[in-house]
Amino acid sequence: MRVQTFAAPSMLLSGDARGRAVVVIDALRMTSVAVAAVTAGCAGILAVGEVSDARRVAAREGALLGGERGARPIEGFDLSNSPLEYTRTRVQGRKIVITTTNGTRAIAAAAPADVLLLGAFINATAVARAVCARREVAFLCAGTAGRFTLEDILAAGCMIARLAEHARPLDLDDQSLAALRLYRQAGGDLADALRGTAHLKRLLDYGLRDDVDYCLTEDSHSVVPHRGEDGWFA
Amino acid sequence: MRVQTFAAPSMLLSGDARGRAVVVIDALRMTSVAVAAVTAGCAGILAVGEVSDARRVAAREGALLGGERGARPIEGFDLSNSPLEYTRTRVQGRKIVITTTNGTRAIAAAAPADVLLLGAFINATAVARAVCARREVAFLCAGTAGRFTLEDILAAGCMIARLAEHARPLDLDDQSLAALRLYRQAGGDLADALRGTAHLKRLLDYGLRDDVDYCLTEDSHSVVPHRGEDGWFA
Repeated sequence: MRVQTFAAPSMLLSGDARGRAVVVIDALRMTSVAVAAVTAGCAGILAVGEVSDARRVAAREGALLGGERGARPIEGFDLSNSPLEYTRTRVQGRKIVITTTNGTRAIAAAAPADVLLLGAFINATAVARAVCARREVAFLCAGTAGRFTLEDILAAGCMIARLAEHARPLDLDDQSLAALRLYRQAGGDLADALRGTAHLKRLLDYGLRDDVDYCLTEDSHSVVPHRGEDGWFA
Repeated sequence: MRVQTFAAPSMLLSGDARGRAVVVIDALRMTSVAVAAVTAGCAGILAVGEVSDARRVAAREGALLGGERGARPIEGFDLSNSPLEYTRTRVQGRKIVITTTNGTRAIAAAAPADVLLLGAFINATAVARAVCARREVAFLCAGTAGRFTLEDILAAGCMIARLAEHARPLDLDDQSLAALRLYRQAGGDLADALRGTAHLKRLLDYGLRDDVDYCLTEDSHSVVPHRGEDGWFA
């Protein structure tokens, strides 16, 4: 199996996503939110770029509004970008329109994919199982404001490590190899591996330690949000 | 000191280079070639994007022509992209116009820099000495055809490790931290760390093992090519 990893949407060259299985990663926190929401039985999640568009689509669809700007809740929205809020009580049976700074952009960049999945630490093994029969898979990290962000690369490395547990030999590109090595070097202590990184620091400064703990717990979930034909993830 | 690392020119956002010290890295082989050429006493090196432009400028300047396309020599050029060719006998006192696939593009992307240097494994300590008094430094990896390439990230990590040996505390962005960890994990065996990577494999397939050995020998050189006001490196 050929595995490619892209550290940010700007690393994706024309044609890289087309016809492929692409796993978008925004481990802190958007793709973890989606995993939590699908696990809690939501009817579907749509990622939308602009706040105004999110409001419009949510009104039309009778959907809940979720997301963040600058890691902070958006005024008037039902839900923030905290996976802890996406409980069965809040979201079961409901559609959710979500807008986030980085994850949404990565999903848009991966739009030409044949199969588009959302991955995170919390569903790493489930992602590996979902893609292991493919000939090729690409991991697209959302990054932070167009920058490389270590948590997303570590999450890619985590999923590649799970893929490597299957018998099929992996043909890793350089970024996948680097991601796998960085993940293995972390030795299971992701919080330590991320100590001092900018995005984690900001979340902790905002008092979001519980979110971070939730998002860094590997394999706590077994669902993989898949994009449907209508563009909604479920 | 604030340290940023960019894995490819496409990761550089508007304003990232402006007013900064930027170290361009194309370890296999362009920036190693430049280090070899300056060490051998060439009168200056100019990086030019297109083969036809390189021919024109070299004719005007009475310069030697060097470079590659697809890691292969260019017909009619005086020199290929092998640092072993840039000997005192061949280049001393001569200007050199060079065109390469990736390094030239990275130099162009870093053009707004205040100070623009060329770095590689072979001059890592010299680069660290050259920039250690700056408040900020950025490492820009050339990558390969727009892709992340492990050898350039390891070379950035090598230079960051040398910087870390100085007393001044380093404020590393996520990519710099990853580069440093990958470099340290390699434990001095760069050839092993790069085993199976695509660009290295191609060079070895072309019989360029001596070039690779030369380029992976850390700190064998003590010069740092600097861009002058006229755009030529010396």
